[in-house]
Amino acid sequence: MLADDVLGRTRERYEHPLPNSYKKAFEAITSDPNNELIVACHGNEVIGVQQITFTPYLTHTGGWRATIEGVRISSTVRGMGVGTGLIKWAIQRAKERGCHIVQLTTDKQRPDALKFYERIGFKATHEGLKLKLE
Amino acid sequence: MLADDVLGRTRERYEHPLPNSYKKAFEAITSDPNNELIVACHGNEVIGVQQITFTPYLTHTGGWRATIEGVRISSTVRGMGVGTGLIKWAIQRAKERGCHIVQLTTDKQRPDALKFYERIGFKATHEGLKLKLE
Repeated sequence: MLADDVLGRTRERYEHPLPNSYKKAFEAITSDPNNELIVACHGNEVIGVQQITFTPYLTHTGGWRATIEGVRISSTVRGMGVGTGLIKWAIQRAKERGCHIVQLTTDKQRPDALKFYERIGFKATHEGLKLKLE
Repeated sequence: MLADDVLGRTRERYEHPLPNSYKKAFEAITSDPNNELIVACHGNEVIGVQQITFTPYLTHTGGWRATIEGVRISSTVRGMGVGTGLIKWAIQRAKERGCHIVQLTTDKQRPDALKFYERIGFKATHEGLKLKLE
C-alpha cells in the first residue's frame, strides 16, 4: 500500500524480500510503547494501515498528543469508509491514552485527503513544514 | 516562556508551585529516549526551549523523522538569533540520530514564525490539522 500511492511510488521500494530498513523500522515501532501501528483487515487481506505516536509535551499545561501518520488505504476498498473507521479508531485510542489533541499533516498535493480529515472534524489551523536532510 | 506568548497565555498556567501536570510531562519527556528537551541558557537564565521527538516510520523505506515542537524564545532576547541557533541545533541532532526529515507545524496565526522557518530552509508543503478532544 505504501508503494501503491501517487506520492509513495517514487519513494518506496516493493520487492521480495523487502529492504531490511522496513523490518528495522517495524521493530523500532512495535518495541516503543508510545508508537502503535494499526492494521485494518478484511478476512486475511490487509486493507488499511496507520501509525499513532503518543507524545508528552510541556505545552498546554503538560499535555499528551496523538500524532497520526502514514495512513494508507488499499485501492481495492477506497471510498468504502475504511479510512474513516481507522481515523475514528485512532481518535478513540487517543482519548484512552489521555491525549488532548489528535494531530496530523497532509500533503497539499492531496486536496481530497484534506477534505476527508475536515469532514471528520480536523481544523487546518497550522502550516506543516518539512526539511529534507541529505 | 510558555505563558509569555500570544497563544500560550490563554492555555498555560504560571503560578507557584506550577501545576503537577507540568512536572509529570517533564518526567515523561526526559525518561523517553525518543524525546529530548533542549534548553538555551545565557548565564543562569533560560532564554529558549524546544522539544525534539524522534519517530520511526514505515514510510520512506522505514525512515526516522525528527519533529520539533514547543519552540519558545524569551522575549528579552527575541530577534537576536537564539531561535535560529536552536533550530539549527535540532537539525544537527536529527542528522546524528539518522533522521531523513525534520518536521514541525506552526500556527497560521504566527506568520512571522512561518517566514522564520522558511528562511532556515523548511518548505510549507503540508497542511497541519488538529482535532481537540473533550
